[in-house]
Amino acid sequence: MSDDLPTENVPTQDELDLLRYESRIKRPLQMKIPELERDERLRHVIFGGQFTVDLLEELADTADKIRILSKLRSGQDFLINLLSHKRAMLYFTQPSTRTFLSFMAACQILGMTCNEVRDPTTSSETKGETRFDSIRMFSSYFDLIIMRSKLPSLAECCAYLMNDLQDSGNRSVPIVNAGSGADEHPTQALLDVYTLQRSFQFADANGASVLDRFDELRNSYPDLTKGLAHKVYGFCGDIGRGRTVRSLASLLAKYQDVTLVFISPDHPTLTLRDDLRNRLSEQGVRIHEVTSFEERVNGVPAIELLDALYMTRIQKEHNIPADDEHFAQMDLSQYKLTRQLVARMKSYAPILHPFPRDQHFGEIPPEIDNDPRAMYFRQARNGMWIRAAMLASIFRVDHHIARYFYDEYKDWNNADEGNVPTSQH
Amino acid sequence: MSDDLPTENVPTQDELDLLRYESRIKRPLQMKIPELERDERLRHVIFGGQFTVDLLEELADTADKIRILSKLRSGQDFLINLLSHKRAMLYFTQPSTRTFLSFMAACQILGMTCNEVRDPTTSSETKGETRFDSIRMFSSYFDLIIMRSKLPSLAECCAYLMNDLQDSGNRSVPIVNAGSGADEHPTQALLDVYTLQRSFQFADANGASVLDRFDELRNSYPDLTKGLAHKVYGFCGDIGRGRTVRSLASLLAKYQDVTLVFISPDHPTLTLRDDLRNRLSEQGVRIHEVTSFEERVNGVPAIELLDALYMTRIQKEHNIPADDEHFAQMDLSQYKLTRQLVARMKSYAPILHPFPRDQHFGEIPPEIDNDPRAMYFRQARNGMWIRAAMLASIFRVDHHIARYFYDEYKDWNNADEGNVPTSQH
Amino acid sequence: MSDDLPTENVPTQDELDLLRYESRIKRPLQMKIPELERDERLRHVIFGGQFTVDLLEELADTADKIRILSKLRSGQDFLINLLSHKRAMLYFTQPSTRTFLSFMAACQILGMTCNEVRDPTTSSETKGETRFDSIRMFSSYFDLIIMRSKLPSLAECCAYLMNDLQDSGNRSVPIVNAGSGADEHPTQALLDVYTLQRSFQFADANGASVLDRFDELRNSYPDLTKGLAHKVYGFCGDIGRGRTVRSLASLLAKYQDVTLVFISPDHPTLTLRDDLRNRLSEQGVRIHEVTSFEERVNGVPAIELLDALYMTRIQKEHNIPADDEHFAQMDLSQYKLTRQLVARMKSYAPILHPFPRDQHFGEIPPEIDNDPRAMYFRQARNGMWIRAAMLASIFRVDHHIARYFYDEYKDWNNADEGNVPTSQH
Repeated sequence: MSDDLPTENVPTQDELDLLRYESRIKRPLQMKIPELERDERLRHVIFGGQFTVDLLEELADTADKIRILSKLRSGQDFLINLLSHKRAMLYFTQPSTRTFLSFMAACQILGMTCNEVRDPTTSSETKGETRFDSIRMFSSYFDLIIMRSKLPSLAECCAYLMNDLQDSGNRSVPIVNAGSGADEHPTQALLDVYTLQRSFQFADANGASVLDRFDELRNSYPDLTKGLAHKVYGFCGDIGRGRTVRSLASLLAKYQDVTLVFISPDHPTLTLRDDLRNRLSEQGVRIHEVTSFEERVNGVPAIELLDALYMTRIQKEHNIPADDEHFAQMDLSQYKLTRQLVARMKSYAPILHPFPRDQHFGEIPPEIDNDPRAMYFRQARNGMWIRAAMLASIFRVDHHIARYFYDEYKDWNNADEGNVPTSQH
Repeated sequence: MSDDLPTENVPTQDELDLLRYESRIKRPLQMKIPELERDERLRHVIFGGQFTVDLLEELADTADKIRILSKLRSGQDFLINLLSHKRAMLYFTQPSTRTFLSFMAACQILGMTCNEVRDPTTSSETKGETRFDSIRMFSSYFDLIIMRSKLPSLAECCAYLMNDLQDSGNRSVPIVNAGSGADEHPTQALLDVYTLQRSFQFADANGASVLDRFDELRNSYPDLTKGLAHKVYGFCGDIGRGRTVRSLASLLAKYQDVTLVFISPDHPTLTLRDDLRNRLSEQGVRIHEVTSFEERVNGVPAIELLDALYMTRIQKEHNIPADDEHFAQMDLSQYKLTRQLVARMKSYAPILHPFPRDQHFGEIPPEIDNDPRAMYFRQARNGMWIRAAMLASIFRVDHHIARYFYDEYKDWNNADEGNVPTSQH
Repeated sequence: MSDDLPTENVPTQDELDLLRYESRIKRPLQMKIPELERDERLRHVIFGGQFTVDLLEELADTADKIRILSKLRSGQDFLINLLSHKRAMLYFTQPSTRTFLSFMAACQILGMTCNEVRDPTTSSETKGETRFDSIRMFSSYFDLIIMRSKLPSLAECCAYLMNDLQDSGNRSVPIVNAGSGADEHPTQALLDVYTLQRSFQFADANGASVLDRFDELRNSYPDLTKGLAHKVYGFCGDIGRGRTVRSLASLLAKYQDVTLVFISPDHPTLTLRDDLRNRLSEQGVRIHEVTSFEERVNGVPAIELLDALYMTRIQKEHNIPADDEHFAQMDLSQYKLTRQLVARMKSYAPILHPFPRDQHFGEIPPEIDNDPRAMYFRQARNGMWIRAAMLASIFRVDHHIARYFYDEYKDWNNADEGNVPTSQH
């Protein structure tokens, strides 16, 4: 089962398999969403666009509960038992250690047994097996397929294949897209949003009540509100090729009164692409495109205006030769964060990065790691919790979690998170 | 630990180790079988020939119970607890994703923890470790070794090594052969037989009672009987090199009144080999060798006579250069199944394939997948159940399964499988 | 994340990260030890030198209990439940199947879920991620990092990183060194010592009471005592490069009245290095360096004097070109054990080998495997038990084990190990 795109003249069965779904792939997203649900709940997770604001809130709520339950052995044991009868296949033909391990950990939190195929050339492929036969094999043995592939629509096609199998009375399992092609990485967007959701609760890390910190912040920022609406989000670096930038921007556009500021070198490879700009504008998002943190937006230097900053690395491994030359002549140093820049940011503004960061480029130097606004390490752990929440939703054990949580923490509320007994968060 | 056959002049310790068992390897199968048992039960699974008809029935019975128990969470929890204290090593120096994953899933159904070594050149080998030292290492850490190797007798030797260790008071674990050399792949034969066993129960897929469908079929086929005896089995494709063909034919020969029809191009690489033909004849099997589905057997075109059809792919990766030339000049298209051919088959005759099928050759085109006779996807899932049954037998928890099943499903009988509550089969 | 040592002129962040810990790395071991503990218990396991005689006894005691509990299903279930809420990362950029599997098995005995990264070039590294960012990623998802690397101080630095994270209120997990650089492999030393501890209990393998065998031995060896003190230990083979020799010798030096005899060819690559000789001498160890088993020590041929013999293979993969030439001209055959030599050893003297042994060199030919003094296979299994004991200590469940053991085996004492119901040791 190869990730290569079709090239031959006589179509292979693999190519015919994809062609079979072409008309379904070309439909607008809104028409696809019902097919990815079952009983109006998540069945397959293929597109970031599947997540509504309500669903994002619901998943964040489940993730918060999982996080808190995980602090005590009794809660861990409860969680581990939830899906201990389920077996997952992580099918990663496009490698990503970070995403892979995050999914593994998420599965394991809920007790799922994990299996993996990471080699793009399995032995079956060399024997002429089609991708769809491989996927059906996985669905024979396992209860969930988490897949990552260079092929843009493969995960989507596999979801349709599973639906078709179900319709014809065959075994079918949920498909989760862990990154496909250049565009979709829905669970990364999910964890980015979850990190913002947690940041914009303005809870005090030291266990003090929420109101205290938020009230204090309101002294300095009187217009500050909780939640993701009414905020200014900055994205810096490789805007053009950043799959995570595209996904996150699309999700943020679902919130009210959102302003997006894209900070990137003025080069066609790196700036905002037309399709995304158009899509965001249509959704009523205010967009500013600037070339430095200093450039003024609404009369203020961009860096001082942001409620949150999403840093990215320049994905030089995707450079075309001409890019290499151009970039070498450009001053890219202004797309690195410095302690001086961070000092000018709003005191609560979280700094995110999808990671890995690039030590050679240095878009976030390590001296910033200890700043309380640096969220990028917590972001990784958030990814584990929110993926676990998503799995709980797919397998419909989220209400078990809610019920157990209610029973165990009746008297607990968000303001008290600091009071939950815990050694490490 | 390498799969290479001995070639040097001065024998290595690896070669001496194999030589040490040479006389035991050369014995007839019947003399070996007792050594692979303990207390007259399976200890090591090395040869398809170890399975008697009684044992095949017993394993199928256990597999059916595991399948049904797996439909409810309570049953899954019971099964997962059975061998949760055991750790398996899957040692696959000859790759096979399908067999590997099937064994993984089978182990996991019974709660075993799985570990794997898939790289043929482990670091220990480069340091001069013998195969036997590697196997003893595995047996130190794990409770079961499932191994697949290009080396024909390696699994057999490892079973003897384990027995010798036990006899000298040392730790010893069961060995399961997941494919060795060109001949033996006993668990594949097991799953093929199990698929036939299930097909020839003539249970109705929709949950109606068994008698209904069988009675209905008897209207059209008055001589039809349940079970594997008194049947005509067709094998099509690469008969000469098909390890699975050889194994399955050998097991079918144990049933009464069996006719085998081999359909292959008339080329020495692809036709039935003399050793197998002789062996089958000695066991009283009727053999027909034909070159097409149309060729008449007992006056009827072969395709219309078959009670079951076992398709295979041409294993071109084992071609010698002369084969490539010859095969290019032959018309191999008649060894592909078509919808027209399937239409002429008996209405109940299952179509099997050991998988992977070859999309480039196309021995089974996908338009046949939805035919109710197409068993090849279910075959894969059957493999998981029957392997789990075999493991249950080796570790002697099969009677636990029988007892639990009896307690839970006292009033249940084969005819009611459709009534067991279930979401997906 | 690469194992390569720094070479470039402009320091990378990876190099700066290591430099940051340079002064802490250069401290004497005794100053480091408190940093590797928490509440005076093991937190990180980095150096063999962390193990005091008391701690070695404590770990051996826990290992013995785990071993005995593992003989019954009830005990296995108790153990599996101890750390079933913990997830381990085995991060092995320097391959070692044997050490890897031993740690896997040890984790699994206590119910830990294992994850692994074995590829030295993870996808994140190619994207410019620092080692420390990778380690923090692992610490985000998992509860323990077991790491093996060619880089000498990496595990040590990671332990400091984790401590610094903890001090700044961040998540932090224990680090276990599974081999770093040329010097440290603390858990190998641990299992070697444990094997000697068990051997020098002089328990009878057949279940008779301890006193019987020891008393009998005292008839022949009136000065014999139990335990590791007052013994003569022989090391044969590649003394200069044997990481395990260095580690074990250092631990043995902590026992009273110890004599070490190093048997190796007189070649600077293979003989005892000055740093270790000086260190051992300072600790009051008597050292003898000889070139054959026959050379007299205290007037007796070395082979007859030894209370234990530690064999090693010549690590030819670390030869420099000049070594190859020199070694080819030397008679290395006298550094192989023979049945004749074994016959002259003390009747109780255990023979150890860190494994893998080299079939081409043949330092221990297989005809010795059945000698009751051959401990090298049991040594491997000991490694699993003692590593499990170490994990139990790190996660502070060792006292749970002691309590459960006491409740279950109140009337049991060391002398009765043979009476514990068991199938295989």
